[in-house]
Amino acid sequence: MNSKEFRKNGKNVIDWIADYYERIENFSVMSRAKVNDIRKNLPNNPPINGEPFESIMQDLEDKILPGITHWQSPNFYGFFPANSSSPAILGELLSSGFGINGMIWASSPSCTELETHMMDWLVNMLDLPKHFHSSFGGGGVIQDSASSATLCALLAAREKATNGASNIKGVKKDLVIYCSTQSHSSIEKAVKIAGIGAENLRHINVNHSFAMKVDDLEKNIKYDINQGKIPAFVFATSGTTSSTAFDPLIGIGELCIKYNIWLHVDAAMAGTAALCEEFRWINEGLENADSYCFNPHKWMLTNFDCDAFFIKNPKTLTDSLSIQPEYLKTNLNGSDTVIDYRDWQIPLGRRFRALKLWFVIRYYGIKGLKAHVRKGVKLSQIFQKLVQDDNRFELMAPSPLNLVCFRIKGSDEINELLLNHLNMAGDMFITHTRLNGKYTLRFCVGNPLTKRYHVESSWEKIVKAANKFI
Amino acid sequence: MNSKEFRKNGKNVIDWIADYYERIENFSVMSRAKVNDIRKNLPNNPPINGEPFESIMQDLEDKILPGITHWQSPNFYGFFPANSSSPAILGELLSSGFGINGMIWASSPSCTELETHMMDWLVNMLDLPKHFHSSFGGGGVIQDSASSATLCALLAAREKATNGASNIKGVKKDLVIYCSTQSHSSIEKAVKIAGIGAENLRHINVNHSFAMKVDDLEKNIKYDINQGKIPAFVFATSGTTSSTAFDPLIGIGELCIKYNIWLHVDAAMAGTAALCEEFRWINEGLENADSYCFNPHKWMLTNFDCDAFFIKNPKTLTDSLSIQPEYLKTNLNGSDTVIDYRDWQIPLGRRFRALKLWFVIRYYGIKGLKAHVRKGVKLSQIFQKLVQDDNRFELMAPSPLNLVCFRIKGSDEINELLLNHLNMAGDMFITHTRLNGKYTLRFCVGNPLTKRYHVESSWEKIVKAANKFI
Repeated sequence: MNSKEFRKNGKNVIDWIADYYERIENFSVMSRAKVNDIRKNLPNNPPINGEPFESIMQDLEDKILPGITHWQSPNFYGFFPANSSSPAILGELLSSGFGINGMIWASSPSCTELETHMMDWLVNMLDLPKHFHSSFGGGGVIQDSASSATLCALLAAREKATNGASNIKGVKKDLVIYCSTQSHSSIEKAVKIAGIGAENLRHINVNHSFAMKVDDLEKNIKYDINQGKIPAFVFATSGTTSSTAFDPLIGIGELCIKYNIWLHVDAAMAGTAALCEEFRWINEGLENADSYCFNPHKWMLTNFDCDAFFIKNPKTLTDSLSIQPEYLKTNLNGSDTVIDYRDWQIPLGRRFRALKLWFVIRYYGIKGLKAHVRKGVKLSQIFQKLVQDDNRFELMAPSPLNLVCFRIKGSDEINELLLNHLNMAGDMFITHTRLNGKYTLRFCVGNPLTKRYHVESSWEKIVKAANKFI
Repeated sequence: MNSKEFRKNGKNVIDWIADYYERIENFSVMSRAKVNDIRKNLPNNPPINGEPFESIMQDLEDKILPGITHWQSPNFYGFFPANSSSPAILGELLSSGFGINGMIWASSPSCTELETHMMDWLVNMLDLPKHFHSSFGGGGVIQDSASSATLCALLAAREKATNGASNIKGVKKDLVIYCSTQSHSSIEKAVKIAGIGAENLRHINVNHSFAMKVDDLEKNIKYDINQGKIPAFVFATSGTTSSTAFDPLIGIGELCIKYNIWLHVDAAMAGTAALCEEFRWINEGLENADSYCFNPHKWMLTNFDCDAFFIKNPKTLTDSLSIQPEYLKTNLNGSDTVIDYRDWQIPLGRRFRALKLWFVIRYYGIKGLKAHVRKGVKLSQIFQKLVQDDNRFELMAPSPLNLVCFRIKGSDEINELLLNHLNMAGDMFITHTRLNGKYTLRFCVGNPLTKRYHVESSWEKIVKAANKFI
């Protein structure tokens, strides 16, 4: 594709995306595709000869679009949102255009330095503890997801608890890991990957607000110590996936200091809220965290993937992940003056993801990003009020931010029927969880396109559908 | 940014990228930035108010571009290439535009089904063993990098060798992992992450062509068995990073069967060559591999990240990585009829990367991709001949594909001086390795823009610079 063709095709793609957003409300939010519906329309073998760009675009429209669940629709309230925005898309486009690999500082200094700089900006913007700022001995790095951040934090903690042993079998005592019964599944995955074993993961009980019980945590820690084990890692959550519950970081942090345990705090969804002074309480207790992460790709208008991971003592992480083959050595390796981010993550290669974050923060400014957070919270409060005012429904958890957990007072079956009916109807997309054993619907507002009338009209449709089942 | 502004800004970005490629040869291939050169020009804090898109683009030009090492320059011969191409960039742009998360089939069926389909296309295109095709019980998945593929393969092998124990400490016998002295550092990283420990990784000796010695491998396996350990995983390479050496897969595979060891084959760079009949010998012996990976982002014109990872028995992998929280359950989870790729990888979330691969394969067709591979091999042969014809230089390894390993006959210091001089001069970028203990220059041709005259003119510059040091 020569330069002229790239300009033409590229501008058509830009228009296609703009058109997509203009017509996004015409689609069923959840794809109605059945298993194999997409594959059955694709040829079994690739073409021998190249095809015109226009044909591929036509097939995108005809064959791929029907299998898309529209995460960027204003009526997408499922899971946690994965925000996109125009400056993010264009920042990522430039990153693709450069096509560089920022595995080490020397392989493109801008990639590393802009990333460190953006992570420092985030520390300032969110008023995170100074020990996560690169000027104070800590540091941040972009991971693909909070799952990978969890694994990196766990590996750093393992490094610390075992004095650098990477052969877990040779370690004299079992390491024990703590999370709550509401913690994200990523901690279980990480514990398995790291060879520590799911049986060494303790799920601590939660209180009526689904927050970790500190006394129960201490009881478990003491028990494990008595059993000759080493409490190594507490995975605390600021804003759980099921219901945005907040584990009590102050109490947990005190225990972590008392028993010399690594404290990792996962604020994947909620972390962005600290942009706003009125939500900055979510950071309380973070001063005792060894590591922290949140996802600008969830609520800070930066498209997936962009998880911001901070660590107080990066050396524990790089000690656990560093490798130094000859073909990657440069004059600068091992020097204190540069960061080689390959040693801060699982993969070796890395994309220039700081670019899109830079575009987003500059384009919206702190004010614009705050407004986005406040809108999500406000709309979810409106939704919560609507639920509250209908006595056939019940709220299932506090809604401190932008997620409302609710259900029809009735059986799990009725609620599941309602969810499936709504998603199949296509006007909105919501997902579920289970709270206190009950099937619960989740309604999360995070999309930049969502306006008050989307939320109100969605509620009307929920009520109308519910009338069929109640 | 409203639709009209997005169209305008987006088209400007497309033009900026097209302009970038038109002037890419004007830049020093290696950035001349010194440590902190980029950061020192950026404000310590983000803006309160949003800024015009044009200002950000201007800063991209003034403040970011000087810190870019131009991986897409036709004179970039360093590391292994990370190809980009116009259809890949535009495919990725559309993926950003959709902004979907393909963690499970139900979260966007097109993302999963197109990915499975592309992986099957690759099996057919490269004539890989049928057991990697989804119709024959195997399957492929896109990973971010070969490092992550290595880790996933190792975790699946660990799962098999330990009968599903994820607590390595509880396993009765030590697991042992084998690679060659020339293997990529990613295996060492994976062995540490998985808790198996660097001390259980054996680096098997290589022959004069830097390929693993099969007899030495068997000697080690027998020794370890006698020591009461379990040989669990062989990491073989088709095209090593230092010199594109090929481990003898047939002999290694026979040992793996004999001793019931998982065989993973990493062909990150070289794998693409199997598109061409004359290079299909690289697949010999793959029929005994349990898992395999290569990187379309290295030599198949698909921009980073895109590693194609294949596994004969995906259940071993999903058993080791599967988690099933309530908030991710759908009617289809756990059914045999859909793939949930979150269980095939370390992170939970995933981008729609199959889209760019689909764009690339269709736009170029098999013919176009073959031509790209053949050009790289041919140009590297031309370069190799030029080195051979100058008796002040020596070749350090066979060049079966597109990498030439060479040096000035002389000291390591002279060769390092030459490398640094060339990279600082900015006309080209090359990197080094160490072969038989000697500092060796690597010249790898993989960029789509590289033409014969780039290679010939680069050689002239190498000779001219060398004259200063010899």
